[in-house]
Amino acid sequence: MAKNLYQFNVAGSPVYVGSTALEELKSHLSTHYSEKDGIIILADENTHEHCYPLLIEEVPRLSHAFKIVIPAGESQKTLETCERVWNQFAVAGANRRSLLINLGGGMISDLGGFTGAVFHRGMDFIHIPTSLLGMVDASMGGKTGVDLYSLKNLIGVFSNPKAVYVWPRFLKTLPLRQLLSGYAEMMKHALIADYNFWSRLIAIPMAVISDWESYIVEAIKIKAEIVNRDPLETGDRLLLNFGHTLGHAFETWSLRHDEKPLTHGEAIAMGIICETYISYRTAGLSIVERDEIVKRILLNFNSYKIPTLAIDELVEITNYDKKNQRGRPMLTLIRNIGNAVAGQAVEPALIRESFFRFTDFVK
Amino acid sequence: MAKNLYQFNVAGSPVYVGSTALEELKSHLSTHYSEKDGIIILADENTHEHCYPLLIEEVPRLSHAFKIVIPAGESQKTLETCERVWNQFAVAGANRRSLLINLGGGMISDLGGFTGAVFHRGMDFIHIPTSLLGMVDASMGGKTGVDLYSLKNLIGVFSNPKAVYVWPRFLKTLPLRQLLSGYAEMMKHALIADYNFWSRLIAIPMAVISDWESYIVEAIKIKAEIVNRDPLETGDRLLLNFGHTLGHAFETWSLRHDEKPLTHGEAIAMGIICETYISYRTAGLSIVERDEIVKRILLNFNSYKIPTLAIDELVEITNYDKKNQRGRPMLTLIRNIGNAVAGQAVEPALIRESFFRFTDFVK
Repeated sequence: MAKNLYQFNVAGSPVYVGSTALEELKSHLSTHYSEKDGIIILADENTHEHCYPLLIEEVPRLSHAFKIVIPAGESQKTLETCERVWNQFAVAGANRRSLLINLGGGMISDLGGFTGAVFHRGMDFIHIPTSLLGMVDASMGGKTGVDLYSLKNLIGVFSNPKAVYVWPRFLKTLPLRQLLSGYAEMMKHALIADYNFWSRLIAIPMAVISDWESYIVEAIKIKAEIVNRDPLETGDRLLLNFGHTLGHAFETWSLRHDEKPLTHGEAIAMGIICETYISYRTAGLSIVERDEIVKRILLNFNSYKIPTLAIDELVEITNYDKKNQRGRPMLTLIRNIGNAVAGQAVEPALIRESFFRFTDFVK
Repeated sequence: MAKNLYQFNVAGSPVYVGSTALEELKSHLSTHYSEKDGIIILADENTHEHCYPLLIEEVPRLSHAFKIVIPAGESQKTLETCERVWNQFAVAGANRRSLLINLGGGMISDLGGFTGAVFHRGMDFIHIPTSLLGMVDASMGGKTGVDLYSLKNLIGVFSNPKAVYVWPRFLKTLPLRQLLSGYAEMMKHALIADYNFWSRLIAIPMAVISDWESYIVEAIKIKAEIVNRDPLETGDRLLLNFGHTLGHAFETWSLRHDEKPLTHGEAIAMGIICETYISYRTAGLSIVERDEIVKRILLNFNSYKIPTLAIDELVEITNYDKKNQRGRPMLTLIRNIGNAVAGQAVEPALIRESFFRFTDFVK
């Protein structure tokens, strides 16, 4: 692998991407972070087992950091887990001058970022994403949060990491299902902003991609460009929400009912199918592109069947979405591949219809 | 009462003070807040009983707002209470475009501000302080938070209210003990920054003050001036912390052990006595001023006796203070009345000594 290092700025945070990203971290520990009053590493059981040893190999000094390990899985993204983490912060003697390192996927950066951002009214944190989803999406842009009553990210703040270190080698520790989760967000990045990236993504089957770095770099470029136009999500940043309003409904539903819930990316893939259908019905998306998108998603994602009886609850969940205005869901839709429009009020009847059509598509 | 209106800016938030403050609010409801997607009022059982009716009389339109009432008292400033509030936000259909009105003392503005600041990653809120403590201190400056394991404000964020409306008439609803709590913070404002204000404060017994407005205005002036120099508390704002490091220890101890715990102000008054003693021992405070301060505080506050056995726990609690650096408590001390210095590392032995001396002072 070539010794590449790409650097981005996302909402004011530097993002280092490439095979030497952890060398950057190593050097920053002696410079930017040398005055820190203690270092804490937060990992989940999976990243502790598979990624922590690699991290220590690359940055041996971190073996002295205080370690906090929490159970893995989206269902752990709760206030109860936060309390356990805060308890450990107190045990570690952490204060607002300490540094928190979040080692993991989207769950760890969302929850870890939140626990840091509100501990002593704000402790610095950095992210080391270990999943594809984390590398292209969750770890950058400053969104942190946890779920409440299974409602996604109901409690959270915008708080930017001091830096993000994206080291693609961690992906080799990842099962296919987790890779796919990130692939869904990449597809979304392409669908809302870049037809060429979409073409490149679908040119080869996801399962045969072995060198992810160039894909990651392209996806981050899209995310950075949109987030930097609107860090606090008052306008353009909502574009990144494509697939998420209805995707979050699937995710909440699954967290409530499935023993092994959907991954975030699987739920988003399903949300993209529904919102693509709505885009076709009200935003001028052609039937040709509609079918291409649905086909490409179904090629990669296992067909997850929702019982027709679940649709009432799915519709009800969308009533609690963060982006609702005066009780109506506001969606991001696409006019064509690579061109999205945010803030579209959609009738509940059409949302219901899209869930019904979903059950058709995945038959 | 004259129709006065004073306006301040504290950390970017407008603060309206005076007998017409609620008229300002009434007019802002039709202007600044007219686009809000629902209004929620948070009160505790006391302010709901005594202040809410006055508020509705002055601003009748607010009778249509969604009301959330929580139990009163510092011991309620917990994550459990936050969860109950968030649950009610969801019931109310609140979203990030709603407006939260915090009607109450420091507990309500601390907890309410936090619940709003992290709901859907940030819902606007305004404060209507109803206690003297809220009017001169807690409601302004953007500090929000709740306690965890009785540790004060362990979890919180800096988040500024959209505005603060200080209507002194609410003070007539307040029992003397609650007035005293705010009086302690006023004394602190004077001690760190303004000898003349101190002289004015001690010129007449607190119990005979009936028109608080001019005192409130002076206290806010001091707070505003210091906070605006350093909104995020990286330097000068720490001056406001005088009396609080050891005061928080008393407060935590009392929350853990007393059936009827100390008010915040009572704990701060005790903290001021200890930190005044430390100021005398290490910061050049004269014995004359030391004794004057201690005497004035004991004139107003009931002598609260701590068992000598409690001192170990009090010292231990200070080890968890937010302002600690590398494990050592950092205090604000006073050189003389009206002149403070922040960031003073103090030996644990001297902290222990000050607690012992406290038991002498209040004999």
